[in-house]
Parts: sequence; C-alpha cells; structure tokens
Amino acid sequence: MQQMDGRKARGDESRRTVLARAIDIASVDGLEGLTIGRLASDVSASKSGVAALFGSKEQLQLATIEAASAVFAEAVIEPARAYPRGLRRVCALVRLWLGYSADRVFEGGCFFLAASVECDSKPGPVRDGLIRALATWDGYLGVSIGYAMEQGELPELTDAEQLAFEINALFNESNTRSLLHGSRVPYEQARTAIAARLLSLGARPAILAEAGLG
Amino acid sequence: MQQMDGRKARGDESRRTVLARAIDIASVDGLEGLTIGRLASDVSASKSGVAALFGSKEQLQLATIEAASAVFAEAVIEPARAYPRGLRRVCALVRLWLGYSADRVFEGGCFFLAASVECDSKPGPVRDGLIRALATWDGYLGVSIGYAMEQGELPELTDAEQLAFEINALFNESNTRSLLHGSRVPYEQARTAIAARLLSLGARPAILAEAGLG
Repeated sequence: MQQMDGRKARGDESRRTVLARAIDIASVDGLEGLTIGRLASDVSASKSGVAALFGSKEQLQLATIEAASAVFAEAVIEPARAYPRGLRRVCALVRLWLGYSADRVFEGGCFFLAASVECDSKPGPVRDGLIRALATWDGYLGVSIGYAMEQGELPELTDAEQLAFEINALFNESNTRSLLHGSRVPYEQARTAIAARLLSLGARPAILAEAGLG
Repeated sequence: MQQMDGRKARGDESRRTVLARAIDIASVDGLEGLTIGRLASDVSASKSGVAALFGSKEQLQLATIEAASAVFAEAVIEPARAYPRGLRRVCALVRLWLGYSADRVFEGGCFFLAASVECDSKPGPVRDGLIRALATWDGYLGVSIGYAMEQGELPELTDAEQLAFEINALFNESNTRSLLHGSRVPYEQARTAIAARLLSLGARPAILAEAGLG
C-alpha cells in the first residue's frame, strides 16, 4: 500500500508540474499550442511519460482548463471570501481580478479570455469545458452582485447579469489592451469605468474608496 | 503594355481571392493558422502560385490584416460617414459595429479581436501591424466622440478615450460571448450598456432612439 501511495503521489506531483507549464503555454500560444511533445521537452520528461499522465491532447486541454480554474480561484475567488457578502465582496473581486491580470498570474495574461477567443468558433468538448469554467465565474460574480442588491447597496440596479456582463467586458478589454501596448493604463481605465458604473447605481462612495476603487 | 496590365490585373484578382479566404481562416483559427499550403488547397491554386503572391508567411499575415481592415472600413466606417458628425455618427458606429459582429462579416466573428488576443503576448511585426490597424479604429471612434463633445451632445463627458475604451470593451465582450454561447443576447446587453452610458453622459434620448439604440 505504501509503495502504491508513493507512486500515486509522484504521479500527482508530475501532473501538477506538467499542468503548471501547460497553463502558461496555453495563455500565450493557445490551447492548440499544447502538444505532448512540447510539454515533455519543456519539463524534461519523456513523451511517453507525459502521454501516460493525460492520454489524448484533448484530455490534456481539458485538464489544463481545470488546473487554470483552480489557480484563478486561488488568486481571485478565495481571497474575496474574506470580505463580507455584498458590495464589499464585489469590490474585492474587481480589485483582485485586475491584479490577477496585471500581475500576469498566467504568463500570457488571462488564460480564460485567451482560450475563449481561441475556441469560440469551434464547437466540441474543449469549448464545452471552457464554457463550464466561465459559467462558474459568471455565477460567482452574479451571485455576489445579487447579495449587494438584496442588501440595498446598489439601489438603482435591476439586473445583476447585465452588470456582470459589463464588468467582465471591462476586465477583458483591460487585459488585451495592456498586453498589446505593454501598458498599465488600461487597468486604470477599467477601474475608473467600474467605479463610475457602481456609483451611478447608487453605491456608497465610502465603500469604493475603502476597497481602493474610488 | 496591355499584356502587362492583364497580368497585373489577374495577379490582383488572385491576391483578392486568396486574402478573402485568409481573413476567414484567421478569424476562426488565428493568424498562426494561415499557411501557404492550406490557402493554396482552399482556393485550388498551386502552393508556388500563392507563395509568389505573398512571399513569406509573415507577409501573408500582414496582407491579411490590411485586407481585413478594408473589409471592416466598408462594413462599419464608410456607412457611418453618411451620418452627421457628432453623437449621431457615434450612435451609427455602435449600431454598425454590433451588426458587423452579429452578421459574421468574418466567419469567426471580429477578426481584430481574435488576432489581438492571439498576438498580444507575442511582440513582432505581425503584432505591430495589428496595433496599427487597431489604432486607426480607435482614432476614428475617439475623434467621432470628440465631435460629439465639441457640439455639447455629451455634456458630462470629459475624456473621449475613456469612453472609447468602454465602448470597445462592450463590443468585444458581446462578440466573444455571442460566439461561445451561440446567442444574440450579448449584443442586446452591449447595446443596453452603451445606451445607458451615453444617457448618463447627458446624451439626448431622442438621438439614441432615432439610431435604434434607445
């Protein structure tokens, strides 16, 4: 049993190493850029060893999406849980998302935007995996906005999904523009736009200021 | 001379045929998906014939960006010129952009967003070509917003570039979401958000309604 556990632990460790590299490759070169040969060479492993860990390229792509989701949750969602439900948590999510992109948690910026734009015209299991990952984020952001509405913190807002769409739009534009122009200004533009939008919905300026968005 | 002109005309015609296909391939599979071999096979030409028209893959990618810019100008910028400078032209640009994406003028949605996200982490001549193409669009949208400001049609607006950033963000999000989910709802969300933003800047509701945005 101990030997089996040891082998399993080494397998899990190898999987993590390969997936960490896979996420960075995919954030720069797309999920199509992920090949078992390239990964094996990057992590100094044999092709057959990497193939044994994942099976097909498609399974590798799906495992990479899941691993990226876990990294994203650790960078954005988990730290936001430290803030009380409602507008304070929404503001924390905004600040953390902008930081996640600006700090290049993934080498090529937001993994999910890169993968979405790559796969959006290509139906199949990989696009479905990505849609599931995005739905988890959309759900979390939407529910968080919903709590702020329930608590009367966004008195002019009637549609949480609409606001989530607008915030995601500003996030993604800041990510793409920042990468293209090698500039941090787009994050400032996104922050300015989101703060103005929240204020127009009746958010208290003190809460935004406290979160570093005001 | 006549013979030379005939040869040149045939060369231009072949170039146009190949580039029309190249734009659609790139909008789905990215600029990296453009290979001389694939294009030759798609348009039933010889590889050497296509190679003679473009030279290198990089030159083909740059020519494709220019050709896509011309198609975009014809679909969005030229028809907007029919509207008077100022808020009416800004509203026309919004309606035309959303239509350009929704009607899939390019097979895989907005060519420029797909290419931006693909190239944003990859410095080089292709990214530079794309940055130039985007700067032309940003400039046109920014100047158009500037005319609306000068004419007092957006009395609360102080920064044309900021508004252009926000409008582009909503355009691009609607494009990606619509493709991913096979839905037109994201265009409605973008239209709603842009109309609300223009109204919050003091735009006259009648002008928005007249443009089909209200």
